[in-house]
Amino acid sequence: MALEFDLVVRGGTVVNADGIAEADIGVSDGRVVAIARNVGKGASEVEARGRLVLPGGVDTHCHIEQISGNGLLNADTFETATRSAAFGGTTTCVSFAAQHKGQELIPVVEDYERRAQRGALIDYAFHIIVSDPECGSLEEDVVTLAERGHRSIKIFTTYNIRLDDTKILQVMAAARKGGDLICVHAENHAIIAYATERNLAAGNTAPKFHATAHSRLAEAEAVARMIRFSEFLDQPVLLFHISTREGVELVRQARQRGSRVRAETCPHYLLMTSEELDRPGLEGAKFMCSPPQRTQDDQEALWQALALGDIQLVTSDHAPFRFDGTGKLANGPDAPFNRIANGMPGLEVRMPLLFDAMVSSGRFDLCKFVEVTASNPARIFGLEAKGAIRIGADADFAIWNPDRKVTFGADDLHDNVGYNPFEGRTVTGWPETVVSRGDVVVESGVISDSYGRGRRVELKPAI
Amino acid sequence: MALEFDLVVRGGTVVNADGIAEADIGVSDGRVVAIARNVGKGASEVEARGRLVLPGGVDTHCHIEQISGNGLLNADTFETATRSAAFGGTTTCVSFAAQHKGQELIPVVEDYERRAQRGALIDYAFHIIVSDPECGSLEEDVVTLAERGHRSIKIFTTYNIRLDDTKILQVMAAARKGGDLICVHAENHAIIAYATERNLAAGNTAPKFHATAHSRLAEAEAVARMIRFSEFLDQPVLLFHISTREGVELVRQARQRGSRVRAETCPHYLLMTSEELDRPGLEGAKFMCSPPQRTQDDQEALWQALALGDIQLVTSDHAPFRFDGTGKLANGPDAPFNRIANGMPGLEVRMPLLFDAMVSSGRFDLCKFVEVTASNPARIFGLEAKGAIRIGADADFAIWNPDRKVTFGADDLHDNVGYNPFEGRTVTGWPETVVSRGDVVVESGVISDSYGRGRRVELKPAI
Amino acid sequence: MALEFDLVVRGGTVVNADGIAEADIGVSDGRVVAIARNVGKGASEVEARGRLVLPGGVDTHCHIEQISGNGLLNADTFETATRSAAFGGTTTCVSFAAQHKGQELIPVVEDYERRAQRGALIDYAFHIIVSDPECGSLEEDVVTLAERGHRSIKIFTTYNIRLDDTKILQVMAAARKGGDLICVHAENHAIIAYATERNLAAGNTAPKFHATAHSRLAEAEAVARMIRFSEFLDQPVLLFHISTREGVELVRQARQRGSRVRAETCPHYLLMTSEELDRPGLEGAKFMCSPPQRTQDDQEALWQALALGDIQLVTSDHAPFRFDGTGKLANGPDAPFNRIANGMPGLEVRMPLLFDAMVSSGRFDLCKFVEVTASNPARIFGLEAKGAIRIGADADFAIWNPDRKVTFGADDLHDNVGYNPFEGRTVTGWPETVVSRGDVVVESGVISDSYGRGRRVELKPAI
Amino acid sequence: MALEFDLVVRGGTVVNADGIAEADIGVSDGRVVAIARNVGKGASEVEARGRLVLPGGVDTHCHIEQISGNGLLNADTFETATRSAAFGGTTTCVSFAAQHKGQELIPVVEDYERRAQRGALIDYAFHIIVSDPECGSLEEDVVTLAERGHRSIKIFTTYNIRLDDTKILQVMAAARKGGDLICVHAENHAIIAYATERNLAAGNTAPKFHATAHSRLAEAEAVARMIRFSEFLDQPVLLFHISTREGVELVRQARQRGSRVRAETCPHYLLMTSEELDRPGLEGAKFMCSPPQRTQDDQEALWQALALGDIQLVTSDHAPFRFDGTGKLANGPDAPFNRIANGMPGLEVRMPLLFDAMVSSGRFDLCKFVEVTASNPARIFGLEAKGAIRIGADADFAIWNPDRKVTFGADDLHDNVGYNPFEGRTVTGWPETVVSRGDVVVESGVISDSYGRGRRVELKPAI
Repeated sequence: MALEFDLVVRGGTVVNADGIAEADIGVSDGRVVAIARNVGKGASEVEARGRLVLPGGVDTHCHIEQISGNGLLNADTFETATRSAAFGGTTTCVSFAAQHKGQELIPVVEDYERRAQRGALIDYAFHIIVSDPECGSLEEDVVTLAERGHRSIKIFTTYNIRLDDTKILQVMAAARKGGDLICVHAENHAIIAYATERNLAAGNTAPKFHATAHSRLAEAEAVARMIRFSEFLDQPVLLFHISTREGVELVRQARQRGSRVRAETCPHYLLMTSEELDRPGLEGAKFMCSPPQRTQDDQEALWQALALGDIQLVTSDHAPFRFDGTGKLANGPDAPFNRIANGMPGLEVRMPLLFDAMVSSGRFDLCKFVEVTASNPARIFGLEAKGAIRIGADADFAIWNPDRKVTFGADDLHDNVGYNPFEGRTVTGWPETVVSRGDVVVESGVISDSYGRGRRVELKPAI
Repeated sequence: MALEFDLVVRGGTVVNADGIAEADIGVSDGRVVAIARNVGKGASEVEARGRLVLPGGVDTHCHIEQISGNGLLNADTFETATRSAAFGGTTTCVSFAAQHKGQELIPVVEDYERRAQRGALIDYAFHIIVSDPECGSLEEDVVTLAERGHRSIKIFTTYNIRLDDTKILQVMAAARKGGDLICVHAENHAIIAYATERNLAAGNTAPKFHATAHSRLAEAEAVARMIRFSEFLDQPVLLFHISTREGVELVRQARQRGSRVRAETCPHYLLMTSEELDRPGLEGAKFMCSPPQRTQDDQEALWQALALGDIQLVTSDHAPFRFDGTGKLANGPDAPFNRIANGMPGLEVRMPLLFDAMVSSGRFDLCKFVEVTASNPARIFGLEAKGAIRIGADADFAIWNPDRKVTFGADDLHDNVGYNPFEGRTVTGWPETVVSRGDVVVESGVISDSYGRGRRVELKPAI
Repeated sequence: MALEFDLVVRGGTVVNADGIAEADIGVSDGRVVAIARNVGKGASEVEARGRLVLPGGVDTHCHIEQISGNGLLNADTFETATRSAAFGGTTTCVSFAAQHKGQELIPVVEDYERRAQRGALIDYAFHIIVSDPECGSLEEDVVTLAERGHRSIKIFTTYNIRLDDTKILQVMAAARKGGDLICVHAENHAIIAYATERNLAAGNTAPKFHATAHSRLAEAEAVARMIRFSEFLDQPVLLFHISTREGVELVRQARQRGSRVRAETCPHYLLMTSEELDRPGLEGAKFMCSPPQRTQDDQEALWQALALGDIQLVTSDHAPFRFDGTGKLANGPDAPFNRIANGMPGLEVRMPLLFDAMVSSGRFDLCKFVEVTASNPARIFGLEAKGAIRIGADADFAIWNPDRKVTFGADDLHDNVGYNPFEGRTVTGWPETVVSRGDVVVESGVISDSYGRGRRVELKPAI
Repeated sequence: MALEFDLVVRGGTVVNADGIAEADIGVSDGRVVAIARNVGKGASEVEARGRLVLPGGVDTHCHIEQISGNGLLNADTFETATRSAAFGGTTTCVSFAAQHKGQELIPVVEDYERRAQRGALIDYAFHIIVSDPECGSLEEDVVTLAERGHRSIKIFTTYNIRLDDTKILQVMAAARKGGDLICVHAENHAIIAYATERNLAAGNTAPKFHATAHSRLAEAEAVARMIRFSEFLDQPVLLFHISTREGVELVRQARQRGSRVRAETCPHYLLMTSEELDRPGLEGAKFMCSPPQRTQDDQEALWQALALGDIQLVTSDHAPFRFDGTGKLANGPDAPFNRIANGMPGLEVRMPLLFDAMVSSGRFDLCKFVEVTASNPARIFGLEAKGAIRIGADADFAIWNPDRKVTFGADDLHDNVGYNPFEGRTVTGWPETVVSRGDVVVESGVISDSYGRGRRVELKPAI
């Protein structure tokens, strides 16, 4: 065999969601063109003997350079976020283009596109957050954007960008026209508001009361409602960040009656409980996210749902706020829990945490790890060239040393958040080399500086 | 034995929810004071040999002399409605005191009290419909009314008197202070509005489209939401008029996890399907009610839920509108389904229909019939002197001829509605004599004319 | 009122499963003939002011004077057992007439009838244990016995009197001919035998290994199987002594699909866990019964099932073995757990334990207590004159002092077992006076000595 | 690229369970060594442009050359069966080595090995049917066979080779030692025997009564029991040929509580109902199999279970009996249903029927088809080199023309059964070329005659 490739990954153990093979991989023009026992030489070669060659991670839920209602950016730019993602073995991320009141959808999306184009190191796509369906011409705009490959809409049932039921149905109906997937943050706003008010009135302002304010019943209620709306319009819905046993059971029941519902969870729901919030002073604020972490019993329900396929994907919900006056502490050290920004960094730790918890622990096999971190997210959003090492697919790889142990430090992430909520945990298994469309972007702890090389990928969710 | 009673019911088969006995009943001062094999003489006597003596029916869901938002009354006054109820073997009814926007609660309730006092032939109580929780001082007013024995609040999730989630929680919290039961009409308004609009846009204006507009998923959604709110506040909720298998399953699951949820259904859900709406012209409008009748499969689910106790009571939801320009046809013969008043008469037929369907059919025993039509409604609302033939209880009886066959005619009801949606059906079993607090109010087809003799009974729901 | 009665219970609070009344009770010829505010004089009178007058307990699962396969009797005669029952407020018990291999059914039953006739202080009936369906003419014998009012058959899926599936179907089919109820001890024999053998092989002989040998899965398996057999033949089945959450769920599911299944549990499953077995030496043997006590989680499932009606009755499963060489220790102090007789005394403590746990605790109301201890057992087995205080019913009463506290001693029961497994527990509420068919059999701690006054009652299960 | 391969499949669309690629496949020494956009020349080449290249089917449930209790063979030899399989796109089959009473396991297996070695055209393995666990030294024999790669044991709960519960636990425990999977035909024998006897007694002897004799409750009971045994011993169990909604629900519940249970169904349960049995004369006997076909509602439950992964694989349960005196009609034309051999041919039609019902219908995608017919069976039984087109895997391919329509004739199968129960049905999609370990065994309707080229593959079930 005298083939020449742009890149060869040689001698690794190639892992896909449906099986494992010892093989070389030949890459040309950013795509996999040969998988074989022994391929010809590549212009460059990556030695992978003794290593696992996995599809690059696909993280379909992260907040990057996102502008809030008052015009402020969150802590990460496309540069810092995609750098962090790449270090963690992720080669595709789907972040948000957030509409605010009075903004038309198309310019909003185009603005995010421009900024990603400048900064992204890896490939990306967007969910369109619709918060003002009456601004512009909803259905027309959705269809126009869908034609450009923007086919995922995110809605909220809480926060000030929430939609009421009437608007949710309106947006779902528009999504149906566009062939879009609907993603939803499902927590009942009235329950949260009621519990927040009662907590504050009782002087319960510490971060740990965030967990009681976001009652598990708020999730149970809104998940059930979104499922019924999905059934009513026959519109596929992906339930973001399921955190409770109740949520799991609602999803399972819906699937058993044939509903077109999918579900996601995140590492912090699988690996943390709400006890993290109960730390001295404001320290607990580092762990605040919505919905909050829950109990060990919920963790078990989530793992079991992953095993059975009732939850199909694990994303980071990377929501970057520094633990200082520019982020979490913007409202001062005495701010009550409801005035502290919600969110945790996760783009970089998602894959290593899950590799450790799933594979190194022996609880799941490698294929299942690939399934929930790469191939399922790709399949659900219709990222046809992602999520698998397959002829014609994008040459996005994470080359793992399954034995390498890493203990997280406070400040070792490559995002711009400045703390690591998993500080002190040791994981086994690490993505040492990362390849994006044939380019080695991480090697020996060094990152490529070719920001802007990332490309937008079109979404084709299976509707 | 030489006792003297005001009234003796002699020689009947006395049926309670927990058993049957051959016994005479002695009544003094409107109360049962003796149940025995052979009691002394009464000032008056009712011969009941060969007859069944049952507790008078308790119908805890009926609309009487109720004022709508625009000030119009429904078709029945307290006179006509309680007359009709009595003919049907019902001796207690709970109707509504409806608050409209800008009205304070206490005067609203007092107004209904005054009107009932004038007209009621049998005993009665009220549910307070709260539609404007911000008018007046909600919590204070609820507590004041509770002290007067008004301890049931009705809320809606649809219609123009609906409350949003925030207000529902507010009302439930107030109910908790008063020790009130919350009753709820649970259908998702946005789903109904969406489906109505689509139907109208497609020219689907006939009555039968009422059934498709009120999607079964609208019920499933709102029932689930109300259950979660009940769990969140630990506030008992009675789900009115469950019509679907989904509704039944949600109630069952809630009860299995220990939630304080009760459920009601009505004869038209047990005995009719939505095919009734599909009649020529506007004829189907006679059968329009909300939620609409469903399918045979739903009927089976409802019967099974009654058998298991997941649904505890069967009420009429008597909602009287004449089939003319004063009622159903107020918006003219071309009115689309959504401009036709919802509701059917039922106070008079409830008990005979159920006796036939439950007892004469052999499907249930007499005790179960008493349970769902009298003793459970009384127990749930805390009508301690009603629902059973027991020493100290009010002497409210319906004396049934179990063999009498009656075929309903078009115009044989004693309400003011003018049609009978069950016209043409033959039932076996009829309440020939009816006694209210010791007074014979119906005998040989003749009604007492002592309107105003009915008294308000205080509610003490088990909270 | 100048009526004369044999007995009057005066001034008590009369409690039935469906309600409570202040009333006197007049009794003639052993039956209730008057319930009234103020009845005439009785030949004898019981003062019940400030006391609760409840239907006497109906204990439909107890082993009395039962002969084992090797001809030995258990520790209680009809004298000692019914004396003990009466002291505990129980006025009817259903024990067993046990067929052993090679015995014909009718003489077996007649033998038990004769012995009960001599000794019983209160009323009684029998379950026929069928262990050799091929001896005699099964169907014919069952029908003959049914005509005599013996209409309950008990079968086992474990122990040496167990039946295999083929024989179980054969017996169920015969029961169907007789209109009998099938009662079943449902534990999978092969699982128990396997686990017992493994335990013994590992030297695990202490009483606590009884609980591991009787795996909860043994119950889950056999309960499921019996339910399917019941469904296959449309034959009602009462599952005895459900002890696990799994058992509860299987019963619930069966009932939801309309199966004719009922279920029972016992105080020791509601109030004890298997930790009782883990005591020094053989002390744990005092608590050995089959199935064994389980966990707190199972207790919660059982209480919830009682609340919802999925379990309908609580019996004692009184199985009397002395804690000496005539009973538990017959095989010596070194006997492994599988050679120690299973069973605990319970006839006398059942009602006080439940009164305390249900009523005094505030968890349930008095009516529910009556329901599960008296009226439901009576209804299920068709003991028409038992389980309620009603005109025409047998005058079986237990008159409770709801405030009396009693602490159980080691040796204060009136059976012949010699120990009380509930020793040391204090209960609130005690049946101070007990009346059986109009005769005061217990008063001020003194028992009537009229052994043999008890009568056999005929069973008419609702089939 | 100048590589030389033994075989190249060129230009096809390669389909695996987790994705689709346009690629050539290079094969050497019977294994896939290259998958690439453009591979070098092969000693032979298969043109696959416009065709789908799928992993060869893996049929893990078929009866081949199996000897019954009385020494008779079923209709197919390894030659005829594997020929038929190959024509249908299947390249691996797992048939049975059946122990009968008094036979030791190892010689039984060796006998089947010898016969397969002579006749098999494609690769194969065996399930060991254990019917006499007391013959020989069970645990030792199982371990010895496991070391040789025989790691699947089949047991029956019905038929004369059934095991009772004690023996089933014994065999499961031995399987645990060997690391074997337990496969089970789960129907309650006593129910079937009872229903058969009643049917025969009533003169109901026609084939259609086979369906009533094999009550759906027989499956429900035995499936539940086998699941509990699996849970008790923590031993993985594969439930063969699930046919009912009840079976599906039991499997689902078991999986949700974490049990190690897998389930299989067959095309005739997915595509036929029991109405097939109701044909004139004995014609219905052609469709008799156990369990029998059920209802449309069951079909829906099975499809939904496949969609959700509760059922993981679809096999043929090929059980070949000719419709003559050597097979179905061996007991004459008047034989009652219970004396007619059960079973239908299916090796050849399985894949085309499913391709049509799943893929051509649009109900599922190609990946799901590969999953349930090839990759899942391979994964569950640990056939590491089968079920996927992957470097290092065996070069077993079925090359499909997705557009070819074929109407089944009466006599067009290549087995030795002589009829096709799917006669008259038209399917879209056909496997035109079939490759087994690099050898083209079917091409243009012509089969290779190299019987004996098939090799035994070792099983390594994931335990």
